[in-house]
Amino acid sequence: MKNVVIIGASGYSGAELASLIAKHPHFSLKGCYVSEQSLDKNKLLSELYPEHTGLLDTFLLPLTEQALNVISDQADYVCLCTDHKVSVELAPKFLALGKKVFDLSGGYRLANSDDYDNYYGFEHPSPDWLEKAQYGLAEWYAPEIKKAQLIAVAGCYPTAALNALKPLKDANLLSDEPVIINAVSGVTGAGRKANMATHFCEVSLAPYGLFNHRHTPEISQYLEHPVLFTPHLGNFARGILETIYIKLKPNTSAAHVEQAYQVLADEPLIRLKGSVLPSVKGVVKQPYVDIGWQQQGEQLIVVVAIDNLLKGAAGQAIQCMNIVNEQPSYLGLKENNV
Amino acid sequence: MKNVVIIGASGYSGAELASLIAKHPHFSLKGCYVSEQSLDKNKLLSELYPEHTGLLDTFLLPLTEQALNVISDQADYVCLCTDHKVSVELAPKFLALGKKVFDLSGGYRLANSDDYDNYYGFEHPSPDWLEKAQYGLAEWYAPEIKKAQLIAVAGCYPTAALNALKPLKDANLLSDEPVIINAVSGVTGAGRKANMATHFCEVSLAPYGLFNHRHTPEISQYLEHPVLFTPHLGNFARGILETIYIKLKPNTSAAHVEQAYQVLADEPLIRLKGSVLPSVKGVVKQPYVDIGWQQQGEQLIVVVAIDNLLKGAAGQAIQCMNIVNEQPSYLGLKENNV
Amino acid sequence: MKNVVIIGASGYSGAELASLIAKHPHFSLKGCYVSEQSLDKNKLLSELYPEHTGLLDTFLLPLTEQALNVISDQADYVCLCTDHKVSVELAPKFLALGKKVFDLSGGYRLANSDDYDNYYGFEHPSPDWLEKAQYGLAEWYAPEIKKAQLIAVAGCYPTAALNALKPLKDANLLSDEPVIINAVSGVTGAGRKANMATHFCEVSLAPYGLFNHRHTPEISQYLEHPVLFTPHLGNFARGILETIYIKLKPNTSAAHVEQAYQVLADEPLIRLKGSVLPSVKGVVKQPYVDIGWQQQGEQLIVVVAIDNLLKGAAGQAIQCMNIVNEQPSYLGLKENNV
Amino acid sequence: MKNVVIIGASGYSGAELASLIAKHPHFSLKGCYVSEQSLDKNKLLSELYPEHTGLLDTFLLPLTEQALNVISDQADYVCLCTDHKVSVELAPKFLALGKKVFDLSGGYRLANSDDYDNYYGFEHPSPDWLEKAQYGLAEWYAPEIKKAQLIAVAGCYPTAALNALKPLKDANLLSDEPVIINAVSGVTGAGRKANMATHFCEVSLAPYGLFNHRHTPEISQYLEHPVLFTPHLGNFARGILETIYIKLKPNTSAAHVEQAYQVLADEPLIRLKGSVLPSVKGVVKQPYVDIGWQQQGEQLIVVVAIDNLLKGAAGQAIQCMNIVNEQPSYLGLKENNV
Repeated sequence: MKNVVIIGASGYSGAELASLIAKHPHFSLKGCYVSEQSLDKNKLLSELYPEHTGLLDTFLLPLTEQALNVISDQADYVCLCTDHKVSVELAPKFLALGKKVFDLSGGYRLANSDDYDNYYGFEHPSPDWLEKAQYGLAEWYAPEIKKAQLIAVAGCYPTAALNALKPLKDANLLSDEPVIINAVSGVTGAGRKANMATHFCEVSLAPYGLFNHRHTPEISQYLEHPVLFTPHLGNFARGILETIYIKLKPNTSAAHVEQAYQVLADEPLIRLKGSVLPSVKGVVKQPYVDIGWQQQGEQLIVVVAIDNLLKGAAGQAIQCMNIVNEQPSYLGLKENNV
Repeated sequence: MKNVVIIGASGYSGAELASLIAKHPHFSLKGCYVSEQSLDKNKLLSELYPEHTGLLDTFLLPLTEQALNVISDQADYVCLCTDHKVSVELAPKFLALGKKVFDLSGGYRLANSDDYDNYYGFEHPSPDWLEKAQYGLAEWYAPEIKKAQLIAVAGCYPTAALNALKPLKDANLLSDEPVIINAVSGVTGAGRKANMATHFCEVSLAPYGLFNHRHTPEISQYLEHPVLFTPHLGNFARGILETIYIKLKPNTSAAHVEQAYQVLADEPLIRLKGSVLPSVKGVVKQPYVDIGWQQQGEQLIVVVAIDNLLKGAAGQAIQCMNIVNEQPSYLGLKENNV
Repeated sequence: MKNVVIIGASGYSGAELASLIAKHPHFSLKGCYVSEQSLDKNKLLSELYPEHTGLLDTFLLPLTEQALNVISDQADYVCLCTDHKVSVELAPKFLALGKKVFDLSGGYRLANSDDYDNYYGFEHPSPDWLEKAQYGLAEWYAPEIKKAQLIAVAGCYPTAALNALKPLKDANLLSDEPVIINAVSGVTGAGRKANMATHFCEVSLAPYGLFNHRHTPEISQYLEHPVLFTPHLGNFARGILETIYIKLKPNTSAAHVEQAYQVLADEPLIRLKGSVLPSVKGVVKQPYVDIGWQQQGEQLIVVVAIDNLLKGAAGQAIQCMNIVNEQPSYLGLKENNV
Repeated sequence: MKNVVIIGASGYSGAELASLIAKHPHFSLKGCYVSEQSLDKNKLLSELYPEHTGLLDTFLLPLTEQALNVISDQADYVCLCTDHKVSVELAPKFLALGKKVFDLSGGYRLANSDDYDNYYGFEHPSPDWLEKAQYGLAEWYAPEIKKAQLIAVAGCYPTAALNALKPLKDANLLSDEPVIINAVSGVTGAGRKANMATHFCEVSLAPYGLFNHRHTPEISQYLEHPVLFTPHLGNFARGILETIYIKLKPNTSAAHVEQAYQVLADEPLIRLKGSVLPSVKGVVKQPYVDIGWQQQGEQLIVVVAIDNLLKGAAGQAIQCMNIVNEQPSYLGLKENNV
């Protein structure tokens, strides 16, 4: 059993991760922390998430200096479900203590520290750890994840996009044109913070972050291909659907595309659906990536769906933790591999 | 044309009222105000409500001392869409200037100033105006409304409950037992303020305010009958549905009940549906009260539905303003009485 | 391992049950059947429920004579997720073969066959089996369920109502007046059949079935107390919330009520929340009954919530099957009793 | 006053149109018809749409031979809210009687009768009328609409797309590459017919009709430019949002784009929002087209939103009828041009 603590456990990703760890056969939830300023401090996690009454009757502890000592003594794995600005400060502390750190923020995902200036608006304080961090996209970097001390768990939109596109890129089927990714996310993606954008009466399908969303460089970096990424907020709580428009190289046949996706055929958490197109409903509360596609000449449309809190956050973190723990990556996500 | 200003125009009721006044044949929208501290100050109202672009490209002005002077010069009617604590302070100022004041808050609705201590938690600062205020339930107090200077526009839940129950009470059909009112409101009823309760991902059908909701004394006062009122928040934006359980006096027949409701039969904004039961969908964006009922022996169930922002707030305010202006109450709410 | 077949597996309850059995440690899903006329015949269950791709890639087989022979050979337990008219015809066939039958319809729930004439509109064809059937409300009739061959799994609304009310009845706290149950169910409760009532654009909060819903006699029979039960359709997919109005016997204190509920305190699938009131969100996709209450004098309001497809159908069926199989009732519903 | 009848009045577009005509200052609703086989025959339209009780207490009459005679005598304008297969049969009958016909189906929208074979799957029975039909996109073809006897009211998706794209095409700003239109429609777009696709519990964001949707040729024909159009069903009742990806000609500046849209600047039902992006919420129950855009180099993203039942169907039909009636096109849609 590995002992796990979660920092930032009160948010949607943090609580989802807590629930997965609480039920996991090889992980033990050793502590749930929030910032010292948090209004949720010293509440039960199940007060915030009544659905988890019984499972998560765990206090949200303030992350004091003393708490750091306790974590130092007790934890094997530290999961950061904090804002990227908090993560980049906290991660080095836990790394210095020799902990394995799984950061669910964007704080260590981009290779190029300049991209932090451009897309995140701050100078990265730990360029050395940034260089050592391993991107946590479970199906693609398992060997590297296994060896890393700091895993930058992949972002929600990039998880969907990269699993849909890397097979095509690796098979050399993409023309030089930028891939167009039209993405819609549920409101949990905006976090558990009350503001007008997440007010029940204000939410409706609308785009945001054109041209400059932080997931744009994350996708293009790991795809090694230019992308035009356009996110939208949708009027549902969980799930991401991406409709991806791809210009293929000339003479790319349906068989080529089909063949390219075979690289994912044995992945337990990928469901290749061929010409059957995914929906949000098909993935909500599921650990999977659903991928479908249809082609007309050189035009390919790939549709990919995930649950943003599972495969797009907590589920993928569990995969990374399983890999580090030298267990099958789906453990605690999919029973008996059925 | 009467000149109208709205204080607190940025909220859901205020904006709804602004849109009604902007299209009204006899009212002219002379100014939309917010508090000096409001973050929405100096924005266009249509920035907050893009659906009203074109109609409400009106600046939200801070309610400064100078603004009070302008209102003093220009306004005939002042509508308060403010919190009750603000309303009880502001109303006397405008009344002293000789304005007709239409208060959409609960600040002047209860006859007994003790009820403000008990249900609102503050001592009422203007017991004299409280005494002079006229309750603005349009179908029932038109003659009094016409003569009043201060109209306390009826609350949303009470509007539905009182229209459903007063006919039965007046016909002397209610037994002595308390009437049980199970009510569900859309989230606009909670106001346009970001908090966890109105976060898109947190809203789901749930009760609140058992036994002590402020609308309990409002309903029982104007019904002159005890009620057990239990509100719920529902996962929809607009609308109120109340399912009301009534023990009738012995030997009350279906004909008696039918007859009792005839008092409302000619009201242009009441739709008596007999045994056909109302739904939220049937009243959303409609100015009506829908009332249906079914009876079994001495047990009567009345179901009533309104749009909380129209008949439950802005629509009823317009009715009161029309009455004061000696026009048909439905003007600007229902075209040509069709 | 017990071999289980499901008849009527294409509906919402049937598919939910299939997914639970497919993951259950002691049950093996041996076959999913639909009527010979069903349009879903010979489809994969996961075609209808893409969320279960991988888990339920099982053909929906037509229930032919030959299929009955196969079931006769292979099945230990037969689950009927069929309409009550189908259930009352099918159950005796499987019972004659010596199978344990778990009927999720209302076909065998009412003790009095006259109630079938009155509430279901048909003469019950198997009064003998009706007499032998055991009502499957897991927390209350485990010893009887263990011995029965035919279990009439409790209905969705009654499951919520009875768990909320039986503790009070057994503690002799209810006055003689009828208990008023105001209930709201999600749309899955209306079944997976396309009609105008379940059209996305037609659904909104509205009451139905006043005074004569089939769950009225089911509740009052097992409560042994008169009830006034009023169901509503709500605009959400899953979940039931009931707000229950109870007149207590004189001098019933808060401690009496608290004490009465202790009878459920150790039940693994009941969550007593005291004065914290349940919500639909708190139980969706959860196997629990959440119960909260508040009291004022002799007036008690109990609020109870369940997921209609889990505790209100498939979850409770699993509990009954576990009990018959002499295992803890929560097995396959709640991991490690956490 | 022009007398108007509606054929197919029970559907969402038909009922919306009926409500607009019932309130219109220059049109009189002379009859609402459904097919002789319709289950809604002889019901009140307000039974199906309780929100319109009072306004639309009009019987849905079966379209018998006798009814055709009545229409022949009474109607000036005939609106077809029928399936395209019905429209292509009915329209010639009414045209032969000299009526002005407004067809809201796709039956007469495409210039090339071969496209009916390819996209609609039937041979067009009236190629002569197809040739004479005028496409009813109000902002673009008012002079031609005014003179036509048969107006093929523009489709919902094309209305949004064409208003967003024609200004750019006419200003010669589009490169030769196909324009990519990612569109999401509310469920009313799927019609008021019960099927699994519109079941409340089955709806979730998902694409459909890739490469071959009927609106593809409609858009490209009137744009005179190739398009890749991909519709999705969204989990909301009303509204369409299209996110359009455009490769501009080299050296196209922001000023060029801004300038191009000035062609629509004075249109009363177009709202140009510049870099502020539209949302579904902003157009629901509004007669407008909202258009916003952002540019990065040669890449332009235009976002356009309409209410599919208003500007995308009934509202546009009213515009066309106003134009034929030589009145301002917004009459009955937007009061006093405010």
